[in-house]
Amino acid sequence: MESAKPEEPATQAATEVKAEVEDEVTPFNIAAASDSGIDYDKLVDKFGCSRMTDELREKIERLTGRAPHRFIRRNIFFCHRDLDIILNRYEQNQLFYLYTGRGPSAEALHLGHTIPFIMTRYMQEAFDVPLVIQITDDEKFMYRPELSQEQVAKMAISNIKDIIAFGFDPEKTFIFLDTEYIKELYPNVTKVQKAVTLNQIKGVFGFNDSDPVGKYAYPPIQAVPSFCNSFPHIFGSRKNVPSLIPCAIDQDPYFRMTRDVAARLKYEKTGTFYSTFFPGLEGMKGKMSSSSLHNTILLTDSAADVKKKINKYAFSGGGATEQEQREKGANLDVDMPYQYLRFFLEDDAELAQIAEDYSTGKMLTGQIKQKLIEVLSTYLKEFQERRKAITDEDVKKFMEVRKINPVPKKFEEARKAKEAAEKLAKEAEAGAGAQ
Amino acid sequence: MESAKPEEPATQAATEVKAEVEDEVTPFNIAAASDSGIDYDKLVDKFGCSRMTDELREKIERLTGRAPHRFIRRNIFFCHRDLDIILNRYEQNQLFYLYTGRGPSAEALHLGHTIPFIMTRYMQEAFDVPLVIQITDDEKFMYRPELSQEQVAKMAISNIKDIIAFGFDPEKTFIFLDTEYIKELYPNVTKVQKAVTLNQIKGVFGFNDSDPVGKYAYPPIQAVPSFCNSFPHIFGSRKNVPSLIPCAIDQDPYFRMTRDVAARLKYEKTGTFYSTFFPGLEGMKGKMSSSSLHNTILLTDSAADVKKKINKYAFSGGGATEQEQREKGANLDVDMPYQYLRFFLEDDAELAQIAEDYSTGKMLTGQIKQKLIEVLSTYLKEFQERRKAITDEDVKKFMEVRKINPVPKKFEEARKAKEAAEKLAKEAEAGAGAQ
Repeated sequence: MESAKPEEPATQAATEVKAEVEDEVTPFNIAAASDSGIDYDKLVDKFGCSRMTDELREKIERLTGRAPHRFIRRNIFFCHRDLDIILNRYEQNQLFYLYTGRGPSAEALHLGHTIPFIMTRYMQEAFDVPLVIQITDDEKFMYRPELSQEQVAKMAISNIKDIIAFGFDPEKTFIFLDTEYIKELYPNVTKVQKAVTLNQIKGVFGFNDSDPVGKYAYPPIQAVPSFCNSFPHIFGSRKNVPSLIPCAIDQDPYFRMTRDVAARLKYEKTGTFYSTFFPGLEGMKGKMSSSSLHNTILLTDSAADVKKKINKYAFSGGGATEQEQREKGANLDVDMPYQYLRFFLEDDAELAQIAEDYSTGKMLTGQIKQKLIEVLSTYLKEFQERRKAITDEDVKKFMEVRKINPVPKKFEEARKAKEAAEKLAKEAEAGAGAQ
Repeated sequence: MESAKPEEPATQAATEVKAEVEDEVTPFNIAAASDSGIDYDKLVDKFGCSRMTDELREKIERLTGRAPHRFIRRNIFFCHRDLDIILNRYEQNQLFYLYTGRGPSAEALHLGHTIPFIMTRYMQEAFDVPLVIQITDDEKFMYRPELSQEQVAKMAISNIKDIIAFGFDPEKTFIFLDTEYIKELYPNVTKVQKAVTLNQIKGVFGFNDSDPVGKYAYPPIQAVPSFCNSFPHIFGSRKNVPSLIPCAIDQDPYFRMTRDVAARLKYEKTGTFYSTFFPGLEGMKGKMSSSSLHNTILLTDSAADVKKKINKYAFSGGGATEQEQREKGANLDVDMPYQYLRFFLEDDAELAQIAEDYSTGKMLTGQIKQKLIEVLSTYLKEFQERRKAITDEDVKKFMEVRKINPVPKKFEEARKAKEAAEKLAKEAEAGAGAQ
């Protein structure tokens, strides 16, 4: 690892100021009580997740033979459920797979959407494991009164192209639409729908009795891709391959329910790996959302858009005047340009230097904004080029129900090496016996 | 029609005695307040269905060119929703189709189960229309805590063979398992799940919050086979073919919901045609049920079983002694042998004679029981022979997703006749023009 010690989550400072109002974090709403954002430290305990540790970060480095992703180094992925168990299994050459998803949406992806996909892509590459991506066209149709099935279907294809553009491995990635893959999911869906009561769904999701019944029927459909027997074309008759879900912590209620059901169905419990939220341009109070466009940087934004948005809307923790900034320096915890660089600037040393210079007043607000504009413009340009090259053929390839080898190459190599060693040992033994 | 005027439903006499407790009729329970059974007359008004009329019976005779089935002649199928509309459409050579179903069950079918299947088979033959039969393996699995998917799957195949043995037309009948056909149903399922609130499901079915969420998710799956676009292999791109569901009246709550949703989705409302219940051997209080074996005649019963059950358990409306019977005669309304003959004795004149003789004391209880034993033994023997001949190949044939021509032959003939007449008229015109 490049940085000797990962940072604490950005908002740790905020935990010392006791908020009178509690943070609200559900799959449907994020609202921080404090201007410094969500108190993640409190949230970990409230949800009952496990904190990331140096030991786990070191283990990831050891198992993958490379520095962990910057999101891990910087504790942006800051807590988990059973990540330790999955890494222990992997250490013993036992499989796991990755699971992520997206609800089709008319809007272009924004930077907040990229975090789980960037992380998932890194993990797929680093661990050489299969990945399933659920496109929840049924969910979007049922939850959004204004959308028709035809509209959702169209958005889904465009969204799948966006997802492919993150660079997932076509040999190891299966993307599916719920409406197309429902027959294969349905045996597990009915098992979960039988095992979960209405009360439990209400408790987890907070629906009420005037909601469409489809809202209640849906969560089991999001649960079952975490069970490996939903994908016989990948896992064959294997019954004990756990999944790992990299996502933002607001998704935890879904997967708490999923883990609870898995235990009752005698399936492997899914592991989860949770990130903080990607904040909107205007500050740490909520996550970036498509509903407020000047709060949001889209993956379709041009370099000019990015420049304008950052200069105009990005909340600054720097001094109000150049003189004040020179004298007092910036408050990094609430400064969006700095916070965004934590997510998108790869070089740890450079980030540390910026933190030092900017917080002490050596660097000015205009300068850090300029740095962020450069970093994001480059990222977006590269993404847009990849996105442009994605064809309908690519979509078809990723969505085909086809045999996928779930075994990492290094497991295969280890097995072959072991066999060769055993053979040699046997030959040596036979040779010794013959003498 | 053989009988000049159909009887009123058997329990009409009971309506004059005011019951203090109300009848309970839901898809999950039937309990008559009076010993004479359910007050169907009240039920029709309570549910808001339409009574059968002589006009409709005559129309069925006219459209099918034969006497209506004894169930119709005797007002056993005694009320409906929109049967009149569907017959009017048919009169104008517009299509409809039949829809029925069954939840797989370990138990052999009993006589009560046969009523909708006998009626459906008659209607398919008489009207020459397609039929879809839904096997609700998902429902049984979710509603029955003790059943595994493997158990349900096994029962389903056996039940399908039972169903085929009723003699449905293999050219016009499509039987499907929900778990196998779910992908084709799912677009309509999500439409219904979006259009129906939790409150509505609760209101119709009386579930509570500690029930599995699958119970709530399921009713839309029973609704969608009533929409013709769930079966493109039968109806192609036709959008306006209504279904007709022959069943017992306790199923009305399901289809009230279905009709309500159909209207909102701009689909044709399904028509329904409702029978009274088939009573258990011990009397009119409830319907025949597999849960009480000495109350039930199974389709697997031997002639000896039938004889024993009827002689031992069938509630008699006759006199307690031969002398009392000779003097006072029998009360047909509560006499199970007579009630069963209404269902199973084909000859109207013979039935009328029995009613006359038995109610006046000319016929004895032992004699009517003997008559019923003969009729049922013959029916069961024939059924069992047909059932024995059904193979896995037959099952496969009925379940294959294949093109089915939904158009009755007489519609085709009418079309051809019309074309021929038009051609002749044109030729005559051309001939007249040439002169």
